[in-house]
Amino acid sequence: MKRLVLTIEYDGTFFHGWQVQPGLRTVQLNIESALTRMMGQTIRVSASGRTDAGVHALGQVAHCDVPKRIPPENVALGLNSILPGDVRVVECRWAPEGFHSRFRATGKRYRYLILNRRKPTALLRNRVWNIRHPLDLDNMRGGAFYLIGEKDFFSFRSSGDPGTTVRDMRDISIEKDGDMVTIFFEANGFLKHMVRNIVGALVEVGRGRMEPGNLKKLLDSRSRLNAPRKAPAQGLTLMEVFYLNSPPDSLTNPVPGGR
Amino acid sequence: MKRLVLTIEYDGTFFHGWQVQPGLRTVQLNIESALTRMMGQTIRVSASGRTDAGVHALGQVAHCDVPKRIPPENVALGLNSILPGDVRVVECRWAPEGFHSRFRATGKRYRYLILNRRKPTALLRNRVWNIRHPLDLDNMRGGAFYLIGEKDFFSFRSSGDPGTTVRDMRDISIEKDGDMVTIFFEANGFLKHMVRNIVGALVEVGRGRMEPGNLKKLLDSRSRLNAPRKAPAQGLTLMEVFYLNSPPDSLTNPVPGGR
Repeated sequence: MKRLVLTIEYDGTFFHGWQVQPGLRTVQLNIESALTRMMGQTIRVSASGRTDAGVHALGQVAHCDVPKRIPPENVALGLNSILPGDVRVVECRWAPEGFHSRFRATGKRYRYLILNRRKPTALLRNRVWNIRHPLDLDNMRGGAFYLIGEKDFFSFRSSGDPGTTVRDMRDISIEKDGDMVTIFFEANGFLKHMVRNIVGALVEVGRGRMEPGNLKKLLDSRSRLNAPRKAPAQGLTLMEVFYLNSPPDSLTNPVPGGR
Repeated sequence: MKRLVLTIEYDGTFFHGWQVQPGLRTVQLNIESALTRMMGQTIRVSASGRTDAGVHALGQVAHCDVPKRIPPENVALGLNSILPGDVRVVECRWAPEGFHSRFRATGKRYRYLILNRRKPTALLRNRVWNIRHPLDLDNMRGGAFYLIGEKDFFSFRSSGDPGTTVRDMRDISIEKDGDMVTIFFEANGFLKHMVRNIVGALVEVGRGRMEPGNLKKLLDSRSRLNAPRKAPAQGLTLMEVFYLNSPPDSLTNPVPGGR
């Protein structure tokens, strides 16, 4: 058995998220089915983390152990010939020793897209949150400032999410190009719904319904009580998963046939 | 009866183009049905021109005559509450005297998107033509040069397209941003499949399978015999329709209640 690392792009619109759930169309189910068919035996796939229904990925990372020594490029081509068009394996390589897509991840980067215009959109309806009211980006940046660094993000968690709520938010950047507002988040890890909860709060600040400083109060309160509603799923994309010294893109393949 | 001008955005993926065709899901059918339901009587809609199945629009322009004096903003809101998410009325105004979306149009602008990378794409699968081979943009620009001006585009027409094949191509611009190649076309009018046929030929030049000068030969030949295959529909978007002195965006509404 050899371990493969897959970098996966998907359009989350018609998926019930990453994770296998009985009776639902998920990305994991599609990839496991395709691998199982290709390899002639049951293959399980493990990702860096789940994504919710409607959330997209340009750089989800997953791994799986495969029995046959098919060249990874051929695995990617084979999988893409079986998979539906809304999921694509964009990279496939042998994993370095000890690799695990979840436990070896050192961080992630997400992108959230807001189309800030009065006019509705047909072409981007499954890609952006369309906000008609003008957003004050300077205030949003001022609010985001309080969320940078190692903080307890309890106020931005999803109810029922277990474990520690402390995360190291390395960066939040807010950019604008025409009507499109792009927010990038980079952290060592994210709680369930954390990005969408933060975006929901940032938009309240941008619309002037919250002061930037209220984000600090909200964070310090360690409570979901005063937290604004979370932003919708379709604006969110998992861009990249980081690994120490071994981003999948720079993994070198071992000597052919060797281990 | 008063004439309305509608600016319409649509995602062409799940439409069989603009024009009503028996038994098929088209944009025109959806808009006529919604207007008819809103107005309580049969309303017909006429556009600047057809678009093919899979082709998108950010600025299709259409007009219709309506009996009631509903403010145009409310017509847009009402239609968008009835229409499916993949079509949106982004502007709605009273038409100036003598307006006709097709016969008064002085030109159009189209955009064609090519994702030029080896990796496949899931998120953009219905928006771009994914070309794996590297494209030489300078050669493509050199070839496009021969198509600028008033020319006979017979070689780039669709078989069976009647009437004159002379059009005035005002501009073709080819830009690149990362992996994305964007080609804009502006002309006083376009033949059926003309943009897609030209893109098909430009890509042959970009891939080095045709010389830039061959586009002049192809144009002069007035024959489809040596024309490359047309580019796929999903990369194409109708961006804008031009009108003399009265682009829909700058139309002024008459005095309320007056005509």
